[in-house]
Amino acid sequence: MSSTDEEIMEATYRVLVESGYSDLSIRRIADEFDGSQSLIYYHYDDKEDLLAGFLAYMLDSFERELAATEADDPVDRLRAVVELIIPQRENPEHLSFQQTLEEIRTQTPYHDRYRDQFDELDARLASELEATIRRGLDDGTFVGVDPTEAADRLIILMIGVTARYVPMRDWDGLERGQAVVEREIESWQRE
Amino acid sequence: MSSTDEEIMEATYRVLVESGYSDLSIRRIADEFDGSQSLIYYHYDDKEDLLAGFLAYMLDSFERELAATEADDPVDRLRAVVELIIPQRENPEHLSFQQTLEEIRTQTPYHDRYRDQFDELDARLASELEATIRRGLDDGTFVGVDPTEAADRLIILMIGVTARYVPMRDWDGLERGQAVVEREIESWQRE
Repeated sequence: MSSTDEEIMEATYRVLVESGYSDLSIRRIADEFDGSQSLIYYHYDDKEDLLAGFLAYMLDSFERELAATEADDPVDRLRAVVELIIPQRENPEHLSFQQTLEEIRTQTPYHDRYRDQFDELDARLASELEATIRRGLDDGTFVGVDPTEAADRLIILMIGVTARYVPMRDWDGLERGQAVVEREIESWQRE
Repeated sequence: MSSTDEEIMEATYRVLVESGYSDLSIRRIADEFDGSQSLIYYHYDDKEDLLAGFLAYMLDSFERELAATEADDPVDRLRAVVELIIPQRENPEHLSFQQTLEEIRTQTPYHDRYRDQFDELDARLASELEATIRRGLDDGTFVGVDPTEAADRLIILMIGVTARYVPMRDWDGLERGQAVVEREIESWQRE
């Protein structure tokens, strides 16, 4: 990725965090990184092309964050992954960004290229969770859990908590939702 | 509600099912019900006012559907409520409509009036589920469940399943998600 590309992606991130998906435009991104609109059009065909590129860039950064997660213990590792997805009320930037990602997810029926990126993201997330749960079963941390099913269930809970409470700005609800996810992980542990 | 109002609401429903929230406009709604745009503006100030009215209309219709649910057995009643929220793959109209509702839910940070309607919808749904779970505890169908927490968890799962699979058009995933919800309800039952 060229440094201009990188700057465009970072500017896109800032615009999304500041004003959400519906206000995203090539003009706003150009303003944000002090470049010209024509420079952006040199790199991307249109807004859809740019946003599909941005989602791929986010997937790469999610991969790097997963790789940088040092927690080795299966429970700690699951908690670390949960924190990458469900934003904390103390972190307004992550709240806004996950809010925007949910907005874009609802646009996937109209944009196949966005859908492909979310497919990859969900698959990557599922395989990470499944591998961690499997390791927890092997080392005796977890007991009596089907790893595929439990990973699926955890993703549904994480998306449910984010989609239900974050757009509504319901921070008490968000904390209750986080506790639901925490109890789910606890329920897999050997008594 | 006047019959013109009712016609406007029905036309709004059809436009949302056909083309989603982002394509919604007063013009499209006027075309859909063979009325004029000025007739719509006589009833509603603008698109936001109309959509807030539409969400209230949907809440009323959700109330009527709940009241019409004849299932008396707590498990059957929970299943009936779940079916009002999570669409079946065989029902394209319900799939499109729930897809659109999720789109509008992600717009609540920018529209307080939409947020108020979703707040009411979620509260109504939570109280219905909680009352049903409580009844199941009283008659011995369920055991060892906290009704408030279980209702919360069920709503998170329902929104998670809808938000994860419906926009992605992942019908196999949708069925797996429905099975997750079904197993959740089963887990509350006396062995």
